[in-house]
Amino acid sequence: MHGVVAVLGVGLVEPGAPVIRADDAGVTRGDGCFEGCRLRDGVIDKLDRHLARMTRSAAALEIPFDASAWAALVAEAVAAWPEPGEAAVKLLLTRGPVGGAPSGFVSIGPLPADYPRQRREGLRIITLPRGTASDAYAAAPWLLGGVKTLSYAVNMAAQREAVRRGADDVILVSADGAVLEAPTSSVVWWDGARLHTTPTGPSGILASTTQRLLFERAEAAGWQTAQTAATVDDLHAAQVVWLVASVRGPVDVVALDGKARARVPEVDAEVRRLAGFGG
Amino acid sequence: MHGVVAVLGVGLVEPGAPVIRADDAGVTRGDGCFEGCRLRDGVIDKLDRHLARMTRSAAALEIPFDASAWAALVAEAVAAWPEPGEAAVKLLLTRGPVGGAPSGFVSIGPLPADYPRQRREGLRIITLPRGTASDAYAAAPWLLGGVKTLSYAVNMAAQREAVRRGADDVILVSADGAVLEAPTSSVVWWDGARLHTTPTGPSGILASTTQRLLFERAEAAGWQTAQTAATVDDLHAAQVVWLVASVRGPVDVVALDGKARARVPEVDAEVRRLAGFGG
Repeated sequence: MHGVVAVLGVGLVEPGAPVIRADDAGVTRGDGCFEGCRLRDGVIDKLDRHLARMTRSAAALEIPFDASAWAALVAEAVAAWPEPGEAAVKLLLTRGPVGGAPSGFVSIGPLPADYPRQRREGLRIITLPRGTASDAYAAAPWLLGGVKTLSYAVNMAAQREAVRRGADDVILVSADGAVLEAPTSSVVWWDGARLHTTPTGPSGILASTTQRLLFERAEAAGWQTAQTAATVDDLHAAQVVWLVASVRGPVDVVALDGKARARVPEVDAEVRRLAGFGG
Repeated sequence: MHGVVAVLGVGLVEPGAPVIRADDAGVTRGDGCFEGCRLRDGVIDKLDRHLARMTRSAAALEIPFDASAWAALVAEAVAAWPEPGEAAVKLLLTRGPVGGAPSGFVSIGPLPADYPRQRREGLRIITLPRGTASDAYAAAPWLLGGVKTLSYAVNMAAQREAVRRGADDVILVSADGAVLEAPTSSVVWWDGARLHTTPTGPSGILASTTQRLLFERAEAAGWQTAQTAATVDDLHAAQVVWLVASVRGPVDVVALDGKARARVPEVDAEVRRLAGFGG
């Protein structure tokens, strides 16, 4: 493994070394939370927002989380990653063994191999039902809506289904036809007048740090923005649709359910630049 | 940690030692599958059925699984567990790192501390919505219905909600009011004429090895059995309701959503005995 791993309470370890016990609920139950961040030239994008969201995820799971200890662990890991340019950083917290202490680590590695091509060529997307209604998470905190847990097996299976169908990624749709989010991204679109994203809360959608930063900067630059419940037809009608994520950044959709979409380079470039992915 | 851990391709390791790498999708994505089995006096209950179900789970996840290598690993772990009586065995397979090999282990440890009391006193159950319709998994293999994945964060959160409300466990109910399953058990009931369980397939319910064995033995003993779509009212009307699982066995429900239920010791004892949990 080409990378850096720093374990909470331990410090740097050999990157290929095992770090999680057989009885840790992080692996036995997918019980824990994480953040994925971009490192660029020694600096992590919006680390404060990632630590704030991980604090909320850990609180929802009732797992202790000391944000200042994690900030120190992140700094130790970043100092050990010597390479310029972009890298992917993961902060991962587990519940630990029954009756034991939580465990956690920060890992740093290269960008996923397919990101440069996806950013350049855009994303071919299929939509898939998520099986839940658009208000399924209202008053049901045990469903962990908006919590970035380790239990992503369905998200990964949806992405394998996309590859099987010749696509790059997925937009998940509720049982009642509402656009939700992608397995590891949120959905943003431009209708010619406003930048839109889908509403969090009862939908269970994870609040995206990249979408939030993008919208703040877009508003400061005079764009109109909105949280909007949408159907897949609304996405087909939009001028530009992006999947937005911390490491990959905003990438525009060039095909939606097999229907090619014209790219709008000037709007796309500006959205990428506002999100910190210019050039 | 009091227990035994045997790692695929390695053999026995120190039980508290880390066994999973930081980049293994088993912990980063809850991406893998498992089985929980009961060991009693050196023998694992229905091991062939557990290996068969794990073969199906791994195939659904497209992770290689060599059942004979796993049978040998299980034998090695069991030989290292010297204690008579009951123990809990876990077989756990992960997808491994991106581009790397899957990892797996067998672990053995004591029964969960609360099982003896629960078996003796019965279970206080609450029902909670699962957020999906009773046919949400039809033609949607990416939702991994019936696959025993590692992504159990919601199951664990539902059980924490039960404890918060003074109960022992949960029965999950579909958005359209159908009884589904419990977070780590299936649901069985006796209406005075038949033993019932809930239908697998489009519901996403995991096929239970213990329920299946119980029904086979009950049929051989002359009982009528059925797969039946049911509402919570049907459970209230039943003479006995059980949660059925491999390690805890069948345990009868003594309170459902705060309503006390009379126990029926002769039927309960016979069901437990048929499932291999007599005496």
